[in-house]
Amino acid sequence: MSAPLPHHSPADVATLAEAAAQAFPVLAQSSPAKRAQLLRAIADQIEALGDTLIDCVCAESALPRARVQGERGRTTAQLRMFATLAEADLWREPRTDDADPNRQPAPRPRIHSERRPIGPVAVFGASNFPLAFSVAGGDSASALAIGCPVVAKAHPAHPETCRLISGAIDRAVAACALPPAVFQVFFESGFDAGQALVQHPAIKAAAFTGSRRGGMALWRLAQNRRDPIPFFAEMSSVNPVFITPACAKADPEGLATGLVGSMTLGVGQFCTQPGLLFVTRDSAPALVSALIQRVQQVPPGTMLTAAMAAHYRDLVEARRAEANVQVLAEGAVASDPRQAQAMLFGCDLSTFLSNDRLQDEVFGPSSLVIEVDTVQDFETAVANLDGQLTATLWHQPGERDAFTSLLWQLEQKVGRIVFNGYPTGVEVGSATVHGGPFPACSDARFTSVGTRAIDRFLRVVAWQEPA
Amino acid sequence: MSAPLPHHSPADVATLAEAAAQAFPVLAQSSPAKRAQLLRAIADQIEALGDTLIDCVCAESALPRARVQGERGRTTAQLRMFATLAEADLWREPRTDDADPNRQPAPRPRIHSERRPIGPVAVFGASNFPLAFSVAGGDSASALAIGCPVVAKAHPAHPETCRLISGAIDRAVAACALPPAVFQVFFESGFDAGQALVQHPAIKAAAFTGSRRGGMALWRLAQNRRDPIPFFAEMSSVNPVFITPACAKADPEGLATGLVGSMTLGVGQFCTQPGLLFVTRDSAPALVSALIQRVQQVPPGTMLTAAMAAHYRDLVEARRAEANVQVLAEGAVASDPRQAQAMLFGCDLSTFLSNDRLQDEVFGPSSLVIEVDTVQDFETAVANLDGQLTATLWHQPGERDAFTSLLWQLEQKVGRIVFNGYPTGVEVGSATVHGGPFPACSDARFTSVGTRAIDRFLRVVAWQEPA
Repeated sequence: MSAPLPHHSPADVATLAEAAAQAFPVLAQSSPAKRAQLLRAIADQIEALGDTLIDCVCAESALPRARVQGERGRTTAQLRMFATLAEADLWREPRTDDADPNRQPAPRPRIHSERRPIGPVAVFGASNFPLAFSVAGGDSASALAIGCPVVAKAHPAHPETCRLISGAIDRAVAACALPPAVFQVFFESGFDAGQALVQHPAIKAAAFTGSRRGGMALWRLAQNRRDPIPFFAEMSSVNPVFITPACAKADPEGLATGLVGSMTLGVGQFCTQPGLLFVTRDSAPALVSALIQRVQQVPPGTMLTAAMAAHYRDLVEARRAEANVQVLAEGAVASDPRQAQAMLFGCDLSTFLSNDRLQDEVFGPSSLVIEVDTVQDFETAVANLDGQLTATLWHQPGERDAFTSLLWQLEQKVGRIVFNGYPTGVEVGSATVHGGPFPACSDARFTSVGTRAIDRFLRVVAWQEPA
Repeated sequence: MSAPLPHHSPADVATLAEAAAQAFPVLAQSSPAKRAQLLRAIADQIEALGDTLIDCVCAESALPRARVQGERGRTTAQLRMFATLAEADLWREPRTDDADPNRQPAPRPRIHSERRPIGPVAVFGASNFPLAFSVAGGDSASALAIGCPVVAKAHPAHPETCRLISGAIDRAVAACALPPAVFQVFFESGFDAGQALVQHPAIKAAAFTGSRRGGMALWRLAQNRRDPIPFFAEMSSVNPVFITPACAKADPEGLATGLVGSMTLGVGQFCTQPGLLFVTRDSAPALVSALIQRVQQVPPGTMLTAAMAAHYRDLVEARRAEANVQVLAEGAVASDPRQAQAMLFGCDLSTFLSNDRLQDEVFGPSSLVIEVDTVQDFETAVANLDGQLTATLWHQPGERDAFTSLLWQLEQKVGRIVFNGYPTGVEVGSATVHGGPFPACSDARFTSVGTRAIDRFLRVVAWQEPA
C-alpha cells in the first residue's frame, strides 16, 4: 500500500512558482553541459525505475506493456535529443549589426541580439501518453534544455506514474547539484491549483496537451492575466485522410488493414487518430467493404479512464443519432464500462458540410467515411475543415501533381501532411511538426514535439553599445 | 482641394479580407525575386512622390521637415532590407530528418519541414511615425517579404499621407503584375472597420503599434475569435535609464544634454522616450541641476494631433497632483493647444514603488527623475517595473561587471539594453529587437522592427514521405 498522493493547493503552487523564479537564473545561466547532464540524468533515472515504472503505467493507463515500453524509449530518447540540443548551444541564434562611427547623420551603434529563455514554464501533460507527453515529456524537456524551470501538473489519470517520474526527476536534479526548483511536480485531483499556476506572475509561459475544453479554459486564464503570457495548447484534431480513386482500387485490402490499424491504435486514443476518411463514390465499394470487415473484427479496448470510455460512448451515441449518418461497422461489443467498441460511420459530402458536429473529435476508435463524387470534392471538404495536426494523402505514383491545389489548401490547415502513410506515430526529430491551426493548437506557428518546440519558450533580447 | 477621403465600412473591409485571401496563394507562391521586386517598387514609388509626400507628412504631423525626410529614408531602406531578405530566401529554414527503412520496430519515414507564411495580415500603424511605422512600415514590409498579403489601416492622424502611400503601393503592385489585393489600405475615422478586420476569418495574424488601450482592445477581439490568431501589439514603454554615480559625476553637463535631447526628441513622441531616470542621491545634484537648466530652455513643441496634446496635458496635470512628486523643471509655456510643454518631475524611490501610476507612459516630452540611496536600489526599482522596450545603463569604463545582477534583471524585463547611449533611435537591421514583455508588447517573444520581425507571421509545416 503506497503513501497517499500529495495534494497541492493554489497556495502551494504559488510557492512552487516563486521557487521556480528563484531557480530561473541558476538554470538559465548554467552551462550547456550542465543542462545536458540534467536531461540525461532524468532519462537515466527513468530507466532506472525499470519494471516498477512499466507496471505502474500499465496498471494506471491500461495501455499494453509493449506500447508502454516503447513509449519509455521514446521519452528517454526525447530527453537525450534535447540534451544534445542544449550541448550544441546553437539555439541562441546570435546576430550582430556592427557599429559604424562614420555614419551620417549619426553614428550607428553596435547591436547584438540573441534568443533567451522566457522564464518558468507551466506544463500540463496529456492522459494518453503517460510518459512521452506527461511530466517528463517533450514540453518539459524543451523548456529545460534552454534554461526554463518547469512546474508540471501530475496528470490525475496516472498520478502514481507521475509520482515515480517526480522521484526520478528529484534524484536527477540532486545528482546535478541544481536547485530542486528547476523541475517541480504538483498534484491535484481538480483544477484549482493548475488554474492558479497559469495566473501566477512568476510563470512566463505554459504548454498544455489535452482536450479543447480544458486547453481553452487554461488558455483563457493566461490571456486574462494582468500580463498575458504565451500559452501553447495542443488540443483536438480529426486528421482527415484523402484517398485517390486509383489508390483505393489498387490495394483496398492492404490500405484497409493499415487504416483500421491506425484508427484503433492505442484504442484510438491518439491526437493524430485518422477520424475522417474521404473516398470517391466510384472507388469506395472495395475499400469500404474491406474497412467494414476489419472494424467488425476489432476487439473491445480498455480506455485510459472509465470517464473517457463513458465520454466516448456518449459521443458515439450522439453520432448514431445524427441525420444521414450511417453505422457502417461496429467492433466487438464491450463488456466492461472502461472498454470501447470500435465504430465506423459513413455519410455523404453534403451531410458532412452541413453538420459541423461531424468535425468534432470523437476521442477513441471511431472514424467517419465521407463518400464524395469526385476528387474535386476533396477541396470543397477542406475549405470547410477546421485546423488539424495532420492530413494524409494516399495516392499512386505520378498522381501527386494532380493534387497541387489540394496540397496548398491542406498546407494552410494542418501542421503535417502525410503521403502514403498513417498519421498516428509522431517522429521526434529536428524536422518534426506536431502543431497546426486552431483548434488543433492555440497558436498555428509552433510545434510541441521535436527540437523546434523550444521556439515557444524563447524571447529575443538585444544589447546596444555605442559606436 | 483634394477629393474626400475614402471611408470603409465593416462590410468593405470584409471584401478586402476576402480579396487578400484570394491573393495569398499568388503572393506566397511568387518567386523570391518577385517579392523583392515588389518591395523595391514600393520604395521607389514612395521616393517618386518627392516633396509632395514630405509636405503632406509635415502638414499632418507637425514633425520637422528634416525628421520627415530622414524617416522617409528609413522607410525605403527598411523596404529594401526586406527585399534583400526575400531574395536571399533563407527564412524558410528547411529541415529534413531522413528516412530509415531498417529502423525497428517500424521504418522511420522521411520528414521535411519549413517555415511558411501564415496568411493575410492586418496592420495597424502608429501616429508618431507616419511613414516608418504606418501603412508601408516595418509590419507591412516584413509580412510582404515572406508572402503574406497586407490589409493596412490608414491612420486617422495622417490620412492624406496614407492616401499618397496607398497610391504609391497601387502603382508598385501594378508594375509588378501582382493582384491588387496583395497590399490594400482602408480608411475610417472610427474603429468599426478595424475591429471587423481583426475578427474576419480570412485574416490570420495582425500587428499593431500604438496605445495600450487601443492595442489591447483589438488584441482582445483577436483572442475572442472562433479561431484566435496571433496579434502582435507594440504598446507602451517608459524606458528606464540607470546612471551610475561615477557616470553622473563624470560629465553631468554632457549627459544632461543628451538625456534632454532624447526625452524631447520629436516632442517626446517616441515609444522609446526615456521616461524614468534613476540616479543616486549623492550623485544627483550636478546632473539634476543640469537637466533642470536644459528642460527650462526647451521650447514648446507641436504634437502629432490636438487630441494627443490635450491628453498629454491631462497626464501632466495628473502627475503634478501625485503625492510626493515634485515639478523639477518646466519648459517654455505652450501658446497653442496643439503644443506641449516639456516637464521634468522628481520623486524618491519609496514614492515610486508605492504608486503604480508613476510607471504609466506620459506620451510627450516629460520624464521623471527617481533619486535612490544606492545603486542596489536600482534592482529594487527594476523588480517593481513592468515590461519595457528598452532600458539604459550609463556607466564608466570598467564598471559594468558590478552590475551583472541588475543586467540579468533587466534582460527579463526589456527587449533592448542600451549601454552609454540613448534609447530613442531604433536601428533597423538583422539584430534589431523592438519588443519586450507586456505591456511593452503583447508577446515578449517577438520584435516588430528588423528582419526578425518576420517570425511573427511564420508557421512551421511538415511533409512526411514513407521510408
